[in-house]
Amino acid sequence: MREVFQQELRDVQDRLVEIAGLVAEAIDNATTAFNESNVALAESVIADDSKIDAAANELDELAIEILARQNPVARDLRIVVSALRISASLERMGDIARHIAQLARYRFPEKVVPKSLRPTFKSMGELDVQIARKLTELLSTQDVDIAEHIRNEDDKVDELHLSVFDQVLAETWSGGASDTVDATLASRYHERFADHAVSIAKKVQYLATGDWTPAED
Amino acid sequence: MREVFQQELRDVQDRLVEIAGLVAEAIDNATTAFNESNVALAESVIADDSKIDAAANELDELAIEILARQNPVARDLRIVVSALRISASLERMGDIARHIAQLARYRFPEKVVPKSLRPTFKSMGELDVQIARKLTELLSTQDVDIAEHIRNEDDKVDELHLSVFDQVLAETWSGGASDTVDATLASRYHERFADHAVSIAKKVQYLATGDWTPAED
Repeated sequence: MREVFQQELRDVQDRLVEIAGLVAEAIDNATTAFNESNVALAESVIADDSKIDAAANELDELAIEILARQNPVARDLRIVVSALRISASLERMGDIARHIAQLARYRFPEKVVPKSLRPTFKSMGELDVQIARKLTELLSTQDVDIAEHIRNEDDKVDELHLSVFDQVLAETWSGGASDTVDATLASRYHERFADHAVSIAKKVQYLATGDWTPAED
Repeated sequence: MREVFQQELRDVQDRLVEIAGLVAEAIDNATTAFNESNVALAESVIADDSKIDAAANELDELAIEILARQNPVARDLRIVVSALRISASLERMGDIARHIAQLARYRFPEKVVPKSLRPTFKSMGELDVQIARKLTELLSTQDVDIAEHIRNEDDKVDELHLSVFDQVLAETWSGGASDTVDATLASRYHERFADHAVSIAKKVQYLATGDWTPAED
């Protein structure tokens, strides 16, 4: 029974890693579509978001089944409850990647932001992709150094987010109201994506330093 | 044992109602502060958000304790898991009320949006407050008609949200980039607040029509 349970916990972990991988792919494609005005890529991100939702739902059902059947307590219970929360955050990160892709599709064949802002969004996009890949690694290894790394990268995203507002509100800003709306929404999405990753990283870190150890037989 | 458990489920429900009440108060004060440029009220919303966070955390700990001690299954298990999810959404609604208050504080003594947009934001704010009050009632009574009502009110918020963009992107818009940024962010916050309420309403509706019935002795 105990062995079955440990196998189930590993299964939960594997599925989280898998969903995080889908999210990393989604944000990679979404930010590329956004920066390069690639409408086919944007469409694929929008279509594939339902796969992330479905995978998150399946994981939730598995977690609820484990709660019912195994009655986990203490550390094991917290692992399962954390998995439910992490899955909700990953699902939301997928939604945000979709929102970024939708902006790209909406403005096509134009680019979403004017030339002066593109280097900033390119950097934010690269950071979000890197954060998502690191998050996948964190969920796979529970290596808390990675959680720290994600928090540092999020600080850089926050700085870039603020710099978007500085640029939009500067005298030199020549964009119209539509550029301002797009830049504001896009910047907010990039920032929120990284926030969710930090929130997941904190949960893994808490479990790792508190009462989580990697599943053992 | 069974009676203790039913009492605990009622306790969970009472706490959700209590947190929803705090959220309703927060959005009421935040939107008033926003519309009337009341910085003292904005400050109180910002300060009080930690009470919502603390109440949500306490509820989560209670729910985890119930999972460990009572090993609920079937409908009862879904009620406890839903409580964890509803508490996360309520906590997020509190954050959004805080963001709206922060915009009001940031622009003080100016108002956040130019005159032409104020009627729209007044209506959005009133709808968000009404939705939050209805949500409190829904959590207290599990009357699914209220869930339907919340979804309808959310449709109105979505329409107003789109109308903000129409106004900002119209030829007649005379606001500067800073007005455009504020209107975009504020509108997005108002819209997201209502979305979270709908997501909670769906969970209650699902439990009510699926396998939830009001707790009985």
